[in-house]
Amino acid sequence: QTGRETTFAASYTDSSDDETSPRDKIQVNSKGTNDFCVKNIKHAEFGRREIEIAEQDMSALISLRKRAQGEKPLAGAKIVGCTHITAQTAVLIETLVALGAQCRWTACNIYSTQNEVAAALSEIGVAVFAWKGESEDDFWWCINKCINMEGWQPNMIIDDGGDLTHWVYKKYPNGFKKIRGIVEESVTGVHRLYQLSKAGKLCVPAMNVNDSVTKQKFDNLYCCRESILDGLKRTTDVMFGGKQVVVCGYGEVGKGCTAALKAMGSIVYVTEIDPICSLQACMDGFRVVKLNEVIRQVDIIITCTGNKNVVTRDQLDRMKNGSIVCNMGHSNTEIDVASLRTPELTWERVRSQVDHVIWPDGKRVILLAEGRLLNLSCSTVPTFVLSITATTQALALIELYNAPEGRYKQDVYLLPKKMDEYVASLHLPTFDAHLTELSDEQAKYLGLNKNGPFKPNYYRYTFPC
Amino acid sequence: QTGRETTFAASYTDSSDDETSPRDKIQVNSKGTNDFCVKNIKHAEFGRREIEIAEQDMSALISLRKRAQGEKPLAGAKIVGCTHITAQTAVLIETLVALGAQCRWTACNIYSTQNEVAAALSEIGVAVFAWKGESEDDFWWCINKCINMEGWQPNMIIDDGGDLTHWVYKKYPNGFKKIRGIVEESVTGVHRLYQLSKAGKLCVPAMNVNDSVTKQKFDNLYCCRESILDGLKRTTDVMFGGKQVVVCGYGEVGKGCTAALKAMGSIVYVTEIDPICSLQACMDGFRVVKLNEVIRQVDIIITCTGNKNVVTRDQLDRMKNGSIVCNMGHSNTEIDVASLRTPELTWERVRSQVDHVIWPDGKRVILLAEGRLLNLSCSTVPTFVLSITATTQALALIELYNAPEGRYKQDVYLLPKKMDEYVASLHLPTFDAHLTELSDEQAKYLGLNKNGPFKPNYYRYTFPC
Amino acid sequence: QTGRETTFAASYTDSSDDETSPRDKIQVNSKGTNDFCVKNIKHAEFGRREIEIAEQDMSALISLRKRAQGEKPLAGAKIVGCTHITAQTAVLIETLVALGAQCRWTACNIYSTQNEVAAALSEIGVAVFAWKGESEDDFWWCINKCINMEGWQPNMIIDDGGDLTHWVYKKYPNGFKKIRGIVEESVTGVHRLYQLSKAGKLCVPAMNVNDSVTKQKFDNLYCCRESILDGLKRTTDVMFGGKQVVVCGYGEVGKGCTAALKAMGSIVYVTEIDPICSLQACMDGFRVVKLNEVIRQVDIIITCTGNKNVVTRDQLDRMKNGSIVCNMGHSNTEIDVASLRTPELTWERVRSQVDHVIWPDGKRVILLAEGRLLNLSCSTVPTFVLSITATTQALALIELYNAPEGRYKQDVYLLPKKMDEYVASLHLPTFDAHLTELSDEQAKYLGLNKNGPFKPNYYRYTFPC
Amino acid sequence: QTGRETTFAASYTDSSDDETSPRDKIQVNSKGTNDFCVKNIKHAEFGRREIEIAEQDMSALISLRKRAQGEKPLAGAKIVGCTHITAQTAVLIETLVALGAQCRWTACNIYSTQNEVAAALSEIGVAVFAWKGESEDDFWWCINKCINMEGWQPNMIIDDGGDLTHWVYKKYPNGFKKIRGIVEESVTGVHRLYQLSKAGKLCVPAMNVNDSVTKQKFDNLYCCRESILDGLKRTTDVMFGGKQVVVCGYGEVGKGCTAALKAMGSIVYVTEIDPICSLQACMDGFRVVKLNEVIRQVDIIITCTGNKNVVTRDQLDRMKNGSIVCNMGHSNTEIDVASLRTPELTWERVRSQVDHVIWPDGKRVILLAEGRLLNLSCSTVPTFVLSITATTQALALIELYNAPEGRYKQDVYLLPKKMDEYVASLHLPTFDAHLTELSDEQAKYLGLNKNGPFKPNYYRYTFPC
Repeated sequence: QTGRETTFAASYTDSSDDETSPRDKIQVNSKGTNDFCVKNIKHAEFGRREIEIAEQDMSALISLRKRAQGEKPLAGAKIVGCTHITAQTAVLIETLVALGAQCRWTACNIYSTQNEVAAALSEIGVAVFAWKGESEDDFWWCINKCINMEGWQPNMIIDDGGDLTHWVYKKYPNGFKKIRGIVEESVTGVHRLYQLSKAGKLCVPAMNVNDSVTKQKFDNLYCCRESILDGLKRTTDVMFGGKQVVVCGYGEVGKGCTAALKAMGSIVYVTEIDPICSLQACMDGFRVVKLNEVIRQVDIIITCTGNKNVVTRDQLDRMKNGSIVCNMGHSNTEIDVASLRTPELTWERVRSQVDHVIWPDGKRVILLAEGRLLNLSCSTVPTFVLSITATTQALALIELYNAPEGRYKQDVYLLPKKMDEYVASLHLPTFDAHLTELSDEQAKYLGLNKNGPFKPNYYRYTFPC
Repeated sequence: QTGRETTFAASYTDSSDDETSPRDKIQVNSKGTNDFCVKNIKHAEFGRREIEIAEQDMSALISLRKRAQGEKPLAGAKIVGCTHITAQTAVLIETLVALGAQCRWTACNIYSTQNEVAAALSEIGVAVFAWKGESEDDFWWCINKCINMEGWQPNMIIDDGGDLTHWVYKKYPNGFKKIRGIVEESVTGVHRLYQLSKAGKLCVPAMNVNDSVTKQKFDNLYCCRESILDGLKRTTDVMFGGKQVVVCGYGEVGKGCTAALKAMGSIVYVTEIDPICSLQACMDGFRVVKLNEVIRQVDIIITCTGNKNVVTRDQLDRMKNGSIVCNMGHSNTEIDVASLRTPELTWERVRSQVDHVIWPDGKRVILLAEGRLLNLSCSTVPTFVLSITATTQALALIELYNAPEGRYKQDVYLLPKKMDEYVASLHLPTFDAHLTELSDEQAKYLGLNKNGPFKPNYYRYTFPC
Repeated sequence: QTGRETTFAASYTDSSDDETSPRDKIQVNSKGTNDFCVKNIKHAEFGRREIEIAEQDMSALISLRKRAQGEKPLAGAKIVGCTHITAQTAVLIETLVALGAQCRWTACNIYSTQNEVAAALSEIGVAVFAWKGESEDDFWWCINKCINMEGWQPNMIIDDGGDLTHWVYKKYPNGFKKIRGIVEESVTGVHRLYQLSKAGKLCVPAMNVNDSVTKQKFDNLYCCRESILDGLKRTTDVMFGGKQVVVCGYGEVGKGCTAALKAMGSIVYVTEIDPICSLQACMDGFRVVKLNEVIRQVDIIITCTGNKNVVTRDQLDRMKNGSIVCNMGHSNTEIDVASLRTPELTWERVRSQVDHVIWPDGKRVILLAEGRLLNLSCSTVPTFVLSITATTQALALIELYNAPEGRYKQDVYLLPKKMDEYVASLHLPTFDAHLTELSDEQAKYLGLNKNGPFKPNYYRYTFPC
Repeated sequence: QTGRETTFAASYTDSSDDETSPRDKIQVNSKGTNDFCVKNIKHAEFGRREIEIAEQDMSALISLRKRAQGEKPLAGAKIVGCTHITAQTAVLIETLVALGAQCRWTACNIYSTQNEVAAALSEIGVAVFAWKGESEDDFWWCINKCINMEGWQPNMIIDDGGDLTHWVYKKYPNGFKKIRGIVEESVTGVHRLYQLSKAGKLCVPAMNVNDSVTKQKFDNLYCCRESILDGLKRTTDVMFGGKQVVVCGYGEVGKGCTAALKAMGSIVYVTEIDPICSLQACMDGFRVVKLNEVIRQVDIIITCTGNKNVVTRDQLDRMKNGSIVCNMGHSNTEIDVASLRTPELTWERVRSQVDHVIWPDGKRVILLAEGRLLNLSCSTVPTFVLSITATTQALALIELYNAPEGRYKQDVYLLPKKMDEYVASLHLPTFDAHLTELSDEQAKYLGLNKNGPFKPNYYRYTFPC
C-alpha cells in the first residue's frame, strides 16, 4: 500500500500474466552467467534505477564504500545473506562487493522481494535466489541454493530472522568450521541466538545489530514519530487537530507517537504499567490514565506496548462511532482482533488495510491493518533509517571478519560503542553537521581518546523529540 | 489524486470499459424518474456508502439538518448548484433538501466528480448532471441542463468558480429577476463578483463564503499544517527529521507548513517580502533569509506566496542533488516549471505526481505535481474541513434566502460574524468542547449580547499553532 | 519587583533617607540650567549607564535616529510628553531630540519613574518633571510645569493614559490651536479619544498607536508567552512539567500563555465564550471546558479574558490545596479578589506579590499580585518590546507633524500600514533577518508597490507560536 | 542566590546585627533541651511555616511517611546527616524521625543553611548543628558535634559531598563497625566512594543515589528545561523569541536547554563532540556546528558539556556586542573566565550575578554568575525535584538499614530498579496519574512480576521533551 510498493505493483503487473515459476525458467544475464534465480532478468534496468534512487539517501554507505575501497577489508569474505531484498539492501550488497566480498543472497520473507532489484543484482553477477511470492518450498530451496555451491564455502553469515542460520545448523553443521561470524538483524533472530548461546550451542561469534543504539532509536523513536502520522493519514485521511487520542505504552514508540500527535494539535492520553515511564509522560505533558477512563471519549487508540490484549473486546464495545484503533507495538496481539470475529459484528473492507467493524446498532470502529503493525503495513520506512541499519550491518561484518583471534568468543555481541559512533558519524554529512574535535588538553581533562568512544558502554542516551 | 479519489479510481475501473457518453445513455432510477445525467445510476449503492462515511465527520451539518428540519428555512428555495460533486457535497445537498429546498446540481470541474456519489444523489431524486471526464462541451451542456428546466426557475445560486453565474448572466439574464442571491465559494469566483460589483453589473446580493474567518483558517493554516507532511510523505517517503527546508512566504499557509515541519525535526528557513510577517517568523524561531542564501544547502523548497517565479531556473540549477521542490501556494506559477522544459534536462516520471528532473551532470531535482498545488494534488482535504465549508455555504444560503428586503443590496457580502460564530459552534461537539456562557452581569460589563457576536467585525483572530 | 526595578531599588536606597520633596529642592545640572524637577540630579551618571544598556536592545530606534538625523523631520516640533519615565523612554526622547524636537516630559504614573534616568535626561537639558513616589498633587503639578512654560508652546502631544490630554483640554483649551496632533499609547487613553471624537469634541488629529499590529502582537502574544513563565517562576518557583493548568480566555494573551505552558510540559485546559476561539483552541490541542468541570483538579488558574468575576469565590472555595491563581488579562477584576477578604479566611503574605489565602480547614490558595496583572507586577517587559512601542510612537509623531494639511482630520487614526511595516523593518536587523525584494515583474503581477504596503488594511495577520 | 534564599535574606536581616557566633550563644528550645547549635532558636516558628509550605510539594515523602509509619522501618536507626539544610531537607529529616530514626544533622555547605529551618528542627528536638555563614573551623566543629555524642553512636550515614564520611574515616575509623551503610548524594561524594572501593578501603556498603534514573532525569533534563529560561530571565530580562543561541553539548542538560529555547522561539545551534549525540541533535531539528562557525552571530552561548575551556578568550573576543554567555554544565571551567581578567577589559557588575565585561572598543559581553552554574546561582531548584531526591535518599536508607546480611557487600550500589520505580510511583498522585495494572495473563506473557520491576537493569529510558 505504500507509495513505493505501489510503484512496484505497477511495474509488476507487466509480467503478472507470467505464471511460470522462476525455478522452471532458463535465464541468463547479459554476461552470459546463470548462477541466480529471479522473476525476470530482463527487468534489471528498472531495478537499477531504483537502486540509484536509493543510493541518494544512503550516502553514508556510499561514503563507507569509498573510504574502504582501497583497503578492501572484506577481501576473501564469502558472505551468504538472507534479508529482505529491496533497493536499499542492494546498496548494502554492492557495498560489500566493492569492499572485496563475494555474495550469495536470498530473501527472508516470501513476499518482500522487489523482483526488479533482484534482477539488477543478478545482472551484475551477484547470485540472488529470490522472488516475490515464493512458496514455502521455494523459500528453503532458495536458501539452500545460496549455501550449497560447488567449490564455494561461505565464511560469513548475515541473517534477518535466523532462518538461514537455522538451515546451516541443520543441514551443514560442518560449515561452521569455516564461518567467522554471524550478523543478525531481527528481534526474533537475536532471541534465537541468545538461546543457542545459553544452551552452549552457539559455535561462532554473533553480532546483534538489532540493539545497537543508533539503529534502535531511529527504528523506534524517530521513525515512529513520522510513520504514525503517515500511516493514519494514508489509511483514513483523518484530521489530527483536536482529536482525542490514547497511546497505550510510553516506551520509545509511544514517545514518538505522542510527540508527533501533540505537535499536530491532538489531545493525547497515555496508559502505562511502569511508574518511571508514567512519570516521564506526566512531565512531557500527557495525562496518564487507565484505558477504561477514556475509552468512551477518544477518537483514536494506538497501542505501543509489546503486550497482548491491551485493547479488549469489552473496550472495543465501548468505543465511539467512527473511532479508529491501530497498533504500532511489537506484536499483532495488542488489539484483541480475534474477539471481533463474531457473528453479530459485520466487517466491511473499505480500503486496503482499512476495515469498518460494524456493531448491530450501526456503530463503526475503524480497524487498521487488522491489528498488525501500522508502520509496516500502511507507511514506509524511510531510506535514511534503512541506511543506518545497513551501515551497521556492513560494519559488523567488517569487524567480525577482521577481528584478531580471541577478540570474540562463541557468544552474542553488541557492536562496539566506537563503531556505533562511526555509523553515526558517517551519517552526519547528510545533515551538513560539523563535529567539534577535542583539543589534547580537553581530551586529557575528560580522560577520553580524541577519536572516541565518547561515552561509557552503560551510558543512557536521552532522546528528546 | 487524493487517497479517497484513489478509492474511486479503483471502483471506477469496473466500468472503465464503458466508453458510452452518459449523454447517450438512457437511465432511470429506481423510482422511475430520469431527470439526471450521470455515469451509471447502478452504482448508487456504493455512492450511498461513501456518503454515509462522510456523514460521520460532518456532524455539524447533520446537526444543522436536525435543528432546522422543523422550520424548513429553505422551503420554496429552488437552488441551482455548481461545485465539486463528492460525498461531502452530497451531505450538503441532502441537508438543503431536508431544509425544504429543491436542488439541481452540476460539476464545477470536469475531473472531480465522484460518479458513484452522483448516482446516489440521482437515485434519491436530486437532478444531477455530472460525470468524471466531461468534455468542455459536456461541461456547459450540464450547466445548461441544470438551469433550463421546463416549469422550474431557480431562485438561489451556489457556485464554485463563477461558471454557473457567468452562464446565467450570458444566457438567462432575465433569470436574475427571480434570484434572491448567489453564494460563491472560490477565490476566482469571488474576484469575478467583486469586479461585477465595481462595474455596477451585479444585480443580486452575493455572499463571499471564501473569506469567512472559520473557513479561511481551516483551509489554510490548520489544513496545510497536516497536508504538507502528508503530501511530501506520500510522494517521496522523505524523512523530515534533520532536513533543511526553506518555506517561501510566511502567510497562513507558510505558517502551517513551518509549524508542522519544525515539529517533525526539520530545520526551517523562511523567505518573505513583508517586514511584519518577517518579524513574526523571527519570533516564531525561523531564520529569515533570501532564497539565494540557502539555495545550495536546502533539501526541500516549499512555495507558499501566491506570487510568480519565486523559484527560478537559475535557482533550480543551484539546488542539491536529490532535493525536492513543491508548491503549496495559490497559483501554479510559483515555481518556474516552464523553464525546466528545455532539451538539456531529462524528465523522468518516477511515480504519479513525482518527476525527477535530471541535469546533464546527473543531478536530480524532485519536482512534485509539476508545480501545481501539492495539497490538492498529493494529499486529501479532511472531511472535517469540508464540513466547515459546507456548513458555511448552507448558512449563507439560508441567510440570503430569508433576509428581509433591504438587508442586502446588490453587492458582495461576508457572512455576518454571528453566523460565522454559529458555524464554529456547530463544530464544537465534534471535540466535546464546552462553551462558557456569560452571566447577565458579565455581558453587561463587556457590552455584549450573551449569544454573540462576541467580537467586533474588525477583530483579527490570532491563530497560533 | 522586577529585576530591573530591583536594581533601581538598590540604587534608590542610597538616597532613601532623603525625605525632602523634589519640589522643595534647588538643583542645577552641570550646564547650569534648572528647568527640571527630579529626585536627585547627581544620580545622572548612573541613569546614563542604564540608558546605554537599554540602547543595546533598541537598535531600531537608534537606526531611525541615524537615518533621519540629516533631515531633522522634527525640526521645530515642541513635544510635551507624559509616559512612564524609564531607560527605554529616555532612548525615545533622545531620538526625538536628535530628530530636531524640543521636549518637555512628565510621568504618567506616580510610581514608575526611574529617578536616575530622569536625572540623566535633565542633565542633558531635557525638561523632566517626575520622580518616583509623587503625590496626587505632585502629579498634576508636574504635568502643568511641562505645559505652562513662558515663551514655549507645545505643538505635539504624546500621552499614555490621556491625563496630559485631559489637562490641556481643561486648562489650556486654546493651546489646541497650535497643536498638530496627539499620539496616544494606552487602551484607556485611546478609549477617551474615541469618546471625544464621537462627541465631536476632538479638535486635533490623534494617532492610536496602541492598536498598531506590530505593537499589539508583541505586547500580547509574544510578550505573554514569555512573561507567564517568568511571572509564575519568580513568585512561586513552581515546576511547570505535569501541572494541570486552566487558562480562561483564548485571545492573544491566552494563546501566548497556553503555548508556553504546553511547551513546558503542562496539561492545559481552556475556557472560552466565543465559539470561533474555542474551535481554535481545539485545533491547537487544548480541551475546551467550563471552569467548573476542572476547578477541583487544576494546579494553576490563569485569567486572560478582560471580563470580570471569571473566577468566583465559589470556585476558589473548590480549588485544591496549594493551587495558584493569577491574572494575565486586561483588568484587575477577573479574579473576584474582594470576595476573599472575609473574616474566615486568613491572608498570609509569604513573599512580595505572593499571598497565601488560608481556609478554615487549612487549605491554601496562592494568589499572585492580589489579582492584578501578573506580567506587569511580577515580570518585566523586555526592552525589545518597548523598542517596538517607542519606534511606533516616534513614527506617529513624525507622521502627524509632517502630514500635509488635510491628510488627517479631527479624528482618531491607526498608523498607516506602510509605517507599521517600517517599524517592523527597522527591527529586522536585530535578528539578522533578510527581506526578499519583489522584482518589477512580480510587483506588477501582485499589483503591489515594491516598497509596500504589502497587505491591504483589512488583512488579518495570523500569529502562530 | 535563589528566590527562596532571597526571602530568607530578607528575614535574616532582622538579626543581621547579631554578630555573635552561635557557638558562643546559650540557647534552649521550648522543651528545655540544648543539644543543637543554630543561629537563633527563636526563629523556629518562621522556619516551621517554610517547612509546611515545602510539604505541599513533597507529598510523595509525606505519603511514604504515612505508609511506613506503622512499621517504623527505621526503628533503632541512628542517622547522622550532612546535607544542605533547607525546608525540603527538613521534610526528609522529619520523615526519617517519623519512621523511627534518631537524627543528628549538619550542613554540607557553609552558606546554604536556612537558619529559621535549622531553628524549627532544633525546636522539635532534632540535633542540628549549622548556620549560614560558618567559618571553615565552624564547619568541621559542627560535623564533629554530630558524631561525637556521649552514649550515642550512629549506625547510618547520609552525606552530600563526602565530608562527613571523610571525617568519620579520619577521626572515628572504629565507628564503621556499627555503621550499616552510607547514602551519598553528590557526584563528588560518589566519586570518592568509588575510589575508596577501588582501593579496597570501603568498609561498609554505600548507596549511590546520585545516579538513580528518576533523580538523574529530573535533575538534568526536566529541571534544566525550566531553569535555563528562569535563570536567563531573572538575570537579563532577555526576550527569547528570535534570539540566536548556541548550546554547547547535547547531553541531558543540553537537551533540556535546547527544547525550552526552541519552544520559546529561539533559533538554536548545537555543538557536540560525540557523533551519536550529534545525530540526535540533527533529528531533533538543530544545526550541529562548530562554535567558531556561529560565534560572531549568536546572541547567547550556553555551555552544557562538563568539559573545560569550551568557550575561549579568543572566541569571547569575537562575540557580538550585548551577547550573553553562561554555563549550565557540570563544572565552572567551561567558560574560560580567567582569561577575561586582564587589564584591557573592564568588568562592571550591573546586578547580582551579572557582569558586563567591556572591551576597549566598548563592546560588552554579559557574563552570568561568573561562569558558575546558572541554574544553581540564578534560578531555584523546584521543590518537586528535591522531593524526588529526598524520597530516593529515604528509601536508600531504609533499604540499607533493613537489608538482610549479605545482600550488600563493601561496595557502591545503585538503588534497586524496583525501588527506583517505587520513588516514581510515590510521585504519581501529584499528577493524578493512574497506573495500569497487568492482568495475570499479561504478566505471564511478558514474563514480569505484576508489581515490577518492569524493566531490566540495562534498560535505557528515552526521555523526550
